[in-house]
Amino acid sequence: MDPSRDNPDLTEERRKAKFDPEKLGNFFWQGQLKRRRQICDYVQAQGTELAPAQPVPFMTRMEKLEDVARLSVGMRKHAENVIDVGSPQEQFYFNSLICGYDGSPFHLHFIMALPAMINNCDEEQAAEWLPKLFNCEIIATYVQTEMGHGTNLKALETTATYDASRQEFVFNSPTITSTKWWPGNLGKTANFAVVMAQLYTNGKCYGAHPFWVQLRDIETHKPLPGITVGDIGPKFGIGSNDNGFLRFNNYRIPRMHMLMKHAKVLPSGEYVPPMHSKVGYTSMMYVRSVMGEIRPGAGEVKVLDYQTQQYRLFPQIARVYAIAFTGIYIMDMYKSVMANINAGDASLLSDLHSLGSGLKSVTSWQTSLGIEQCRMACGGHGYSEASGLPALYTMAVGGCTYEGENMVMLLQCARSLMKLAAELRSSDRINQRDGKKCANPVTGYLYNVSPPQKCRISQESGPDAYLEAFEHVARRNVFRAYERLDQLRKRGRSAEEAWNESGVELTKASKAHTMNFLAKTFVERTKLMDDPASRAVLENFVSLFLSYELLHCAEPLLEDSFISAQQMEYVRLKMYDSMQRIRPNAVTVVDSFDFTDAELKSVLGRRDGNVYEHLLEWAQKSPINAHDVLPFHDKYLGNYMKETLCRVWHRAIHCRVQSQRARPRHFCCSAHFGSPLTQLTAHIDPFIAQKQ
Amino acid sequence: MDPSRDNPDLTEERRKAKFDPEKLGNFFWQGQLKRRRQICDYVQAQGTELAPAQPVPFMTRMEKLEDVARLSVGMRKHAENVIDVGSPQEQFYFNSLICGYDGSPFHLHFIMALPAMINNCDEEQAAEWLPKLFNCEIIATYVQTEMGHGTNLKALETTATYDASRQEFVFNSPTITSTKWWPGNLGKTANFAVVMAQLYTNGKCYGAHPFWVQLRDIETHKPLPGITVGDIGPKFGIGSNDNGFLRFNNYRIPRMHMLMKHAKVLPSGEYVPPMHSKVGYTSMMYVRSVMGEIRPGAGEVKVLDYQTQQYRLFPQIARVYAIAFTGIYIMDMYKSVMANINAGDASLLSDLHSLGSGLKSVTSWQTSLGIEQCRMACGGHGYSEASGLPALYTMAVGGCTYEGENMVMLLQCARSLMKLAAELRSSDRINQRDGKKCANPVTGYLYNVSPPQKCRISQESGPDAYLEAFEHVARRNVFRAYERLDQLRKRGRSAEEAWNESGVELTKASKAHTMNFLAKTFVERTKLMDDPASRAVLENFVSLFLSYELLHCAEPLLEDSFISAQQMEYVRLKMYDSMQRIRPNAVTVVDSFDFTDAELKSVLGRRDGNVYEHLLEWAQKSPINAHDVLPFHDKYLGNYMKETLCRVWHRAIHCRVQSQRARPRHFCCSAHFGSPLTQLTAHIDPFIAQKQ
Repeated sequence: MDPSRDNPDLTEERRKAKFDPEKLGNFFWQGQLKRRRQICDYVQAQGTELAPAQPVPFMTRMEKLEDVARLSVGMRKHAENVIDVGSPQEQFYFNSLICGYDGSPFHLHFIMALPAMINNCDEEQAAEWLPKLFNCEIIATYVQTEMGHGTNLKALETTATYDASRQEFVFNSPTITSTKWWPGNLGKTANFAVVMAQLYTNGKCYGAHPFWVQLRDIETHKPLPGITVGDIGPKFGIGSNDNGFLRFNNYRIPRMHMLMKHAKVLPSGEYVPPMHSKVGYTSMMYVRSVMGEIRPGAGEVKVLDYQTQQYRLFPQIARVYAIAFTGIYIMDMYKSVMANINAGDASLLSDLHSLGSGLKSVTSWQTSLGIEQCRMACGGHGYSEASGLPALYTMAVGGCTYEGENMVMLLQCARSLMKLAAELRSSDRINQRDGKKCANPVTGYLYNVSPPQKCRISQESGPDAYLEAFEHVARRNVFRAYERLDQLRKRGRSAEEAWNESGVELTKASKAHTMNFLAKTFVERTKLMDDPASRAVLENFVSLFLSYELLHCAEPLLEDSFISAQQMEYVRLKMYDSMQRIRPNAVTVVDSFDFTDAELKSVLGRRDGNVYEHLLEWAQKSPINAHDVLPFHDKYLGNYMKETLCRVWHRAIHCRVQSQRARPRHFCCSAHFGSPLTQLTAHIDPFIAQKQ
Repeated sequence: MDPSRDNPDLTEERRKAKFDPEKLGNFFWQGQLKRRRQICDYVQAQGTELAPAQPVPFMTRMEKLEDVARLSVGMRKHAENVIDVGSPQEQFYFNSLICGYDGSPFHLHFIMALPAMINNCDEEQAAEWLPKLFNCEIIATYVQTEMGHGTNLKALETTATYDASRQEFVFNSPTITSTKWWPGNLGKTANFAVVMAQLYTNGKCYGAHPFWVQLRDIETHKPLPGITVGDIGPKFGIGSNDNGFLRFNNYRIPRMHMLMKHAKVLPSGEYVPPMHSKVGYTSMMYVRSVMGEIRPGAGEVKVLDYQTQQYRLFPQIARVYAIAFTGIYIMDMYKSVMANINAGDASLLSDLHSLGSGLKSVTSWQTSLGIEQCRMACGGHGYSEASGLPALYTMAVGGCTYEGENMVMLLQCARSLMKLAAELRSSDRINQRDGKKCANPVTGYLYNVSPPQKCRISQESGPDAYLEAFEHVARRNVFRAYERLDQLRKRGRSAEEAWNESGVELTKASKAHTMNFLAKTFVERTKLMDDPASRAVLENFVSLFLSYELLHCAEPLLEDSFISAQQMEYVRLKMYDSMQRIRPNAVTVVDSFDFTDAELKSVLGRRDGNVYEHLLEWAQKSPINAHDVLPFHDKYLGNYMKETLCRVWHRAIHCRVQSQRARPRHFCCSAHFGSPLTQLTAHIDPFIAQKQ
């Protein structure tokens, strides 16, 4: 580090600072600034041993998995040399320096599996498994989520059926949707797992319970017979985590592998309920589980029936129409402007240029945000590249930058709006009545000499009153920006300084101008639909667009009392009403876009809706799944698990029990993941107390 | 396609539709629905020949480049069989079905290079090169953007210096920042390019002009001596496009390769300016170029001096503090709640749970949006994985979904708020004065029996008046949601239906409740900073946070006239004022976070600010750049270019000139990219007219 070779712009910036960054930094890091630097220096001094083999973006997923296995084993040798392994902050920093932030093979082991075992093992189980877990003689994960069910514990379908004749539980995945899906490190790393499954005994179901399930052979690391396990395939990010899937086919575990701290199944098959209901795992999960239903007991409803889901998705469809219809309009306008120019009339050229800049910016950003909302509305599966949505987003969001960065585009649009505003402010009223200018479809509204001063929206009003409101927002924002510019000029700023200091207001003017045009064009184009049933559908989307978008730019309407609180309420009611009207036609509207499966390349967005079997099929094609055991497994994780030296556990227990130090050094292992040590301590303390 | 096997939920939805999707679809696609299906059927009938070799997400970038080369050559054999090659819509659809939407090797050739040549070639140049370009005997791209300069044409640094003794132009890349960067298909595909460079002749610079530059050998496809060209490395998306870099080292081209339709350089070196200024390329680019300066002539300023850039970045830093400080508070609260529970008092548990749910949702989304703003604020380079921002985003945005989907979390937070609201509405006023409840740091504000009815924000007011406003928003949203619930119940909805139909309002209540807590905690924690200079810095961020966030939730404040228009103006002025105060310390504030380069893994976010040389170094490590010529080049593109059968050109000209059909079939070639045919027609028509 040689500051004299720094970029001089940065050096100048640093020189100008009016405070000491060490002091602010130390406050931010709660006094740990010095420690952070010691840790960083140590890691860097180890060179390639604790550094990525190459920049991560150049690695294939296989290479990422290998490198993080190498690093996560490597860092353990060093942890106690440099960090206080009892400090979550230090652990977290140490881990992020070496393994990055995409997870490591031990991530779920410590953050989920170990706490779940501590919480749910009875004494005998704890004595057998906790030492192995702390020692990493095995690597475990926590397996709850199924393909068809996220947070709804009651809906889990995996079954664990007690067979009294052999004192075993028989695991099955009776449907495609029961396939366990998403657990981190499940695909290739973990050889054991805490698995949530519906417990059946003596012919009765007692609900979801946790079981301790071996997945892979300790020696060979191969999946055991009856187990199908693999990687779920590439995701939007976190490529170095082998999030996995798991299916059971008459897979048997001993009775004693049901985790029996709370509920039990006796050898006879008799179910012994927990002393208190909702203890242990259930207490944490119950609340989340009840969110899965609208009417309790009626089962899971279609996600489209949730108002919050409609609110996410339907406005995006409305925007599709508004944007597509405006695109058609603009293409026609382009042709007619070109024809006019050839005939010697370039009067509409600047409007076209300005509008094009505004539309480029507003629509590319709305499109990107919309794709992300759709992706997140799919829950976890949207994050998988199987959904096609990650690639769609990264492609579309590029449009916010290339061919004119969006902020620059908005300012360019504002250029011509400000020219127009200056003209209008300086010209007399007669000129403003110029019929041709008032009729201009893009800027005509600015020439209106007597625009309405009060909003006319009522409970029954159609699009016109809404369009007036959009015009009001646009007019107001344009002239406000102009006045700010003008005032700054009068206060002595140069034209360029005034322009810069008005930047944010100028972009607001451009956005409002553009939104006004989108709204107007959507309304106009919809009138051209001659099939009444289809036009009724479009009109619902027009209503939604007008109400939804108006609520998102209501501030100027309210600020000068153009709109009343009562009218705002009408707008909201219109929005909710539009969503309800859209609901029954929603799927068919999406059908009508006629996007084929071949074009969408999405396992989720498929015509037949049979998403789960195809998701499983898709994942199985992943190159990672060409190997039951990854080629580098033995070299790093396999070898590490077999070095069974009771590495940490004994020290941990002894240290904790004997010294009663506030920060025992017994969580060296947890340095892998920056675990919430507080939580882990809360789990382990009662267990240790028992042992004393 | 067998609808009887469709997911029955979807079938039911389709059955319920009240309109005919064929009619709406045909309106949306402007009457082209039937054609789309014919095209799709044709493509699917070709099987693997026109389909990706495997799902795109499983491919490495090298595999993606190979597959799109195969497909883009393959589709040309079929285009005329199935599409009207004069229809941009059909071209676009055909292309997207086969090549996807990430671009293809011919993308820039048709969309940029060919129009640039038509616009800038003189007659002789046109006669020589246009047939070759239409025929794809060569593949060209358009090269303007440099590493250090996006849209500012005047700032380009690449030089083309005329050497009269040899009648050649000598090209050089005098600095790192002059490296051409980003042009699509430049890395490995194009063997020619239209290159923008500063023209020097007889010792004088005449500004940026277009030149026709051969990059690679026609036979071997190897870069020519004096040319360094390669792929810029992986990006957020569009992995199948070889966006490239290009450097010149005394590379010579013939004088006649300056594109001389407008300006000329005579053999003597005399410069002949264009007949009209700002013609041709300059007319399109001039406007964009003037956006690069605040004071014309003063050169490019630091991007941080743009108000719009500050508006993008500084609020994100403010949020970092608000979120981090709240994190510290929550961890302390967690510990004390746990201690209380052990002492038998669980009164704060539901507050903690509820607040945690709200914070999880609000902060994960703010963080994700903030990262995207930072990425886009870096312009094009933010889109490169070199910036580290794409990976940061994909990791962070996962947090909006996992461990409790954000909408679900907001509804969970609302659960306890609604319980509280019901309690407060039903209890008498005495209870509400309960001192302990009023003092509750999370929900105490809801117990306030006499909250201010008017906002106290003035030009001078500090945080307290702002915090009152946040409390007002939260209180209002909470009780509005409660009242909606209550009304729906009174109108006969079940509790669950009412809850669902209030979903959006409930999430707004949770967000406002959470924002209120974030604001309050930020203000409080800042008081603990004992270094006055650092505290002053933090206070500016507090001011920015309070003003920026309040402007983004102002609707409820305005709607019930809590705040006046004048006060809104004070809030805006506070925001602009805070940004100005932050500006001089901005870089050092970011330094004070003490993130090391090793941790950030960003070529842009580096301490020394020397981004450009490291960007070039980084790109050169890309696996794609291990090959000067990609291993599959000859098989697809190389072979295709050499099949010089005057494939399209003659037919094109003849067809156009002789038949005068409205939609000539002369753009078969353009079917590669879904080109804006209108634009291309506008370019080619005058050229054809000349030929007649």
